[in-house]
Amino acid sequence: MTLELPAVEAIDDAALSARLQHLLDHKTKPLGALGRLEALALRVGLILGSEAPALEAPQMLVCAGDHGLAARGVSAFPSDVTWQMVENFLAGGAAVSVLARQHGLALTVVDCGVRHDFAPRVGLRLCNIAPGTADASSGPAMSAAQCEQAIANGMALVRGLPGNAVLLGEMGIGNTSAASMLLARLAGLDIDACTGSGTGLDAAGLARKRALLREVLALHADAGTPLGALAAFGGFEVATLVGAVLQAAEERRVIVVDGFIAGAAVLVANALRPHVVQRCVAAHASAEPGHRLLLEALGLSPLLALDLRLGEGSGAALAWPLLESACRILREMASFESAGVSQRDA
Amino acid sequence: MTLELPAVEAIDDAALSARLQHLLDHKTKPLGALGRLEALALRVGLILGSEAPALEAPQMLVCAGDHGLAARGVSAFPSDVTWQMVENFLAGGAAVSVLARQHGLALTVVDCGVRHDFAPRVGLRLCNIAPGTADASSGPAMSAAQCEQAIANGMALVRGLPGNAVLLGEMGIGNTSAASMLLARLAGLDIDACTGSGTGLDAAGLARKRALLREVLALHADAGTPLGALAAFGGFEVATLVGAVLQAAEERRVIVVDGFIAGAAVLVANALRPHVVQRCVAAHASAEPGHRLLLEALGLSPLLALDLRLGEGSGAALAWPLLESACRILREMASFESAGVSQRDA
Repeated sequence: MTLELPAVEAIDDAALSARLQHLLDHKTKPLGALGRLEALALRVGLILGSEAPALEAPQMLVCAGDHGLAARGVSAFPSDVTWQMVENFLAGGAAVSVLARQHGLALTVVDCGVRHDFAPRVGLRLCNIAPGTADASSGPAMSAAQCEQAIANGMALVRGLPGNAVLLGEMGIGNTSAASMLLARLAGLDIDACTGSGTGLDAAGLARKRALLREVLALHADAGTPLGALAAFGGFEVATLVGAVLQAAEERRVIVVDGFIAGAAVLVANALRPHVVQRCVAAHASAEPGHRLLLEALGLSPLLALDLRLGEGSGAALAWPLLESACRILREMASFESAGVSQRDA
Repeated sequence: MTLELPAVEAIDDAALSARLQHLLDHKTKPLGALGRLEALALRVGLILGSEAPALEAPQMLVCAGDHGLAARGVSAFPSDVTWQMVENFLAGGAAVSVLARQHGLALTVVDCGVRHDFAPRVGLRLCNIAPGTADASSGPAMSAAQCEQAIANGMALVRGLPGNAVLLGEMGIGNTSAASMLLARLAGLDIDACTGSGTGLDAAGLARKRALLREVLALHADAGTPLGALAAFGGFEVATLVGAVLQAAEERRVIVVDGFIAGAAVLVANALRPHVVQRCVAAHASAEPGHRLLLEALGLSPLLALDLRLGEGSGAALAWPLLESACRILREMASFESAGVSQRDA
């Protein structure tokens, strides 16, 4: 491999952790009464290295790519929906567009390898490796060189973005299949447990998808390394997200992970650099069944559980205000002492 | 009873419901892919009677009162914390102050019966019925006349507020006890299942609380009507919230219900006027064990599950952006047709 991956150090500041916990414990509320918001405040404080963390210029990065395997009928929607949804993101009509606008998230859409020629415009980054991956059921989805290029693209993208937080979303008809296979291979799980109906396959469609993914896994039985599996199963948007995650982790940005596919990119990145996950916040528990297994493999607890199964970064955007709240609790809440409130009875 | 309670009609507009569902089903996403956000959009659309609902001038109402029963040791904190926290709300240092500021929620704090003389100021409404309720373990917490007055206060408060949405919070040392007894009596449940450690009792304290509440329920065995139970168990802040809920329901405002105590007020209001709950959104599932039973009794599904157990309206404030998102999905998302996106394969 010629690409040099970023170093990602462990976050291991026991003194800051203790100071943050002390601050949280002395805010005007019963001990622990803000529940998981307190754990979130602690995590964001540690990532940003601050007792008064402030999230700045949050960046929503939506990576799009097409999948050769989609021709084998693994999705309820045709591949053209990938480019049509990219246009919809840019026109402001998709769920992630609406939610990013609501929360003041800068939206960047990335053509990582969509089967379409896009006109350049503001908000769109053109990093197209190829018009979709190859069909993983007859060979690797991408070459090692393509995989490295996509990762390098993701790293460069994040390097060029302002702020200290990224939210990661994706679009790609067929990409739950890639995520399922990456999860099965890298976490050592059976493919049936990792595979769901995606955007809405019926029972027969799901059975066909499971059988096909089992075949594809067998075809690439030797793809056991994180990068080998990524090249074998795809896709370009996942590989670009892997690069984005690694770069964001090196820079100690807060990484808000959307759903199953963005999570699969974190799984790959964390297999490459094991402290990546310390920078990550899991936005939600998706209705896609493999997502629970993926979060368990990463040791992440999702903030929301709203039965979302959309991707795009929609869940990350919905969870965003909770990260803001966690920081404000640390920065703005009074302590018992400062507010003159009595402590609990001894 | 001399107070006239508002009429609360059933919301039963099948045509609007069908139109809202049609709109949601044709937005650019797989069917149902926004999960519980879609059910929320449907509910808010029905409450506001609109296919393009817009939440306006949301009002956070935090009702405070003291409880005579607190002298019997049902809380880990002394009663003085009630007035001290009211001061903290007004000074901007409490969790609900911080979160209301974050989300642009107008905050009104109401002295419904705190054992303290407050200096008048902006943001504070003085509706003090008495300096705390009487000790419910030796007689009713309040008289029928006091109970009616508190309900009338809550109705008048909401009548004077702008906007089409209210978020309901509370403060009152000892008030989980009142909520537990209201739940046990009105939902016909055993008091042990309805009683938790509140702001942080230890195991022995919880056992004493349960034994005491069982005694108090037995003492008021004849308090079987919603208003009878409310007067017997208290408190003034709960009764004021009952009036606020009834008035908001009559006006078809969206009612965002915080946690266990605000939920108990909805339980009473819904027992008085059975269509109240159609206007309500449960913000979160509290760590207080009775809350799950209370939401089941009301037939409400909580949006968040963050192990909060603070009250104040903090959970309602944290859930607020989800209501905004639900409305924006309806108003701003493109349809497959308008965006030129292909539908799923037939």
